[in-house]
Amino acid sequence: MKNSLSQRAIVRLTQYHTILRDYAKKNIEYITSSSISKLLEIDETQVRKDVKSINCKGKCKVGYSVLELKNIIEEVLDYKVVKRAYVIGAGNLGTALAKYSKFNDYGLEICGLFDVDLNKIGKIIDGKQVYDLKFIKEHIKKDKINIAILTTPNKVAQEVAEFIVDSGIKYIWNFAPTILNLPSGIHVWHENLIGSFLQFCAIENIS
Amino acid sequence: MKNSLSQRAIVRLTQYHTILRDYAKKNIEYITSSSISKLLEIDETQVRKDVKSINCKGKCKVGYSVLELKNIIEEVLDYKVVKRAYVIGAGNLGTALAKYSKFNDYGLEICGLFDVDLNKIGKIIDGKQVYDLKFIKEHIKKDKINIAILTTPNKVAQEVAEFIVDSGIKYIWNFAPTILNLPSGIHVWHENLIGSFLQFCAIENIS
Repeated sequence: MKNSLSQRAIVRLTQYHTILRDYAKKNIEYITSSSISKLLEIDETQVRKDVKSINCKGKCKVGYSVLELKNIIEEVLDYKVVKRAYVIGAGNLGTALAKYSKFNDYGLEICGLFDVDLNKIGKIIDGKQVYDLKFIKEHIKKDKINIAILTTPNKVAQEVAEFIVDSGIKYIWNFAPTILNLPSGIHVWHENLIGSFLQFCAIENIS
Repeated sequence: MKNSLSQRAIVRLTQYHTILRDYAKKNIEYITSSSISKLLEIDETQVRKDVKSINCKGKCKVGYSVLELKNIIEEVLDYKVVKRAYVIGAGNLGTALAKYSKFNDYGLEICGLFDVDLNKIGKIIDGKQVYDLKFIKEHIKKDKINIAILTTPNKVAQEVAEFIVDSGIKYIWNFAPTILNLPSGIHVWHENLIGSFLQFCAIENIS
């Protein structure tokens, strides 16, 4: 089903899930589309449409069951299917991502970090070891990993990307603010923090 | 004009700009919609439509002028209008964002960091000082800031958000994976790294 959802719908469902998790922790049983709509400042009709699209039904005047809606979203978005990845670049951003414990709740397991800096290699970050990038090929084989989260400095991103692709990586979640030029068959997702901030500015008319 | 652009269009234009900046650095004069389309793995018709929507015209068989298209995007997306912000939370993520020099190129100027940790207060990160969160109100007044980038741990995010809103912040770019409940008139942009990763998985069918 997730392939029939739009990108924006996936983002919204993830946000509903964050609210539902908070509600579940507080043992609140039901939630209305109006509460979700207010918390996220999005249209209530949109919330209802999204929830209907994943076949969850609410109760009249009570709302949706928190646990039911939470479970349906987890199923639809494959949160329970574990996706194993490496972080490439153990700088501040790489370290922050490796420590971001919420990733585990959504099926993303970070299995190690890689760097070229001898001062970083061997360190343990939140239980995950920093390895020498030189030896990534052996680790990829052993750990059966095909996703890399790229957080290197911009100027080496292309070179490092080519190296990890040669070593067996097929999917790159790229945080370096540059567009990577890689062989076909390699899939790159450009995380665009600047783009995100500019959306915020445009929508709220910040200037 | 930027208000008439969709959120996705803003993100795509930002990505085109990243490519154009790389091309400009290499002194390449022209770029085709086909090159942009291949680098970003998006439809060529989409690229042409986006460029047309911001009134940039290409030359037959040559493509778009790199500098012209780059300038038009900068104008349309207000890159040259400086937006001043504070980072709240000087942990790994806050530090990474404060060091992210590319923000400046897009009009986002980080003017300082705030934390409650005495070991962090007083430090200088990439020329920006870490201040005591207690005193943020005075800084906000002096620096005329209304945007905060929130990178605190999840469990204190709501409390810290309320405190900075009381101190004068109107816009929050929230990196904590929780939904903030704040008075109306306060605008929150939830950065959703998990949502972004899940889009990647859904689109590429990673499992």
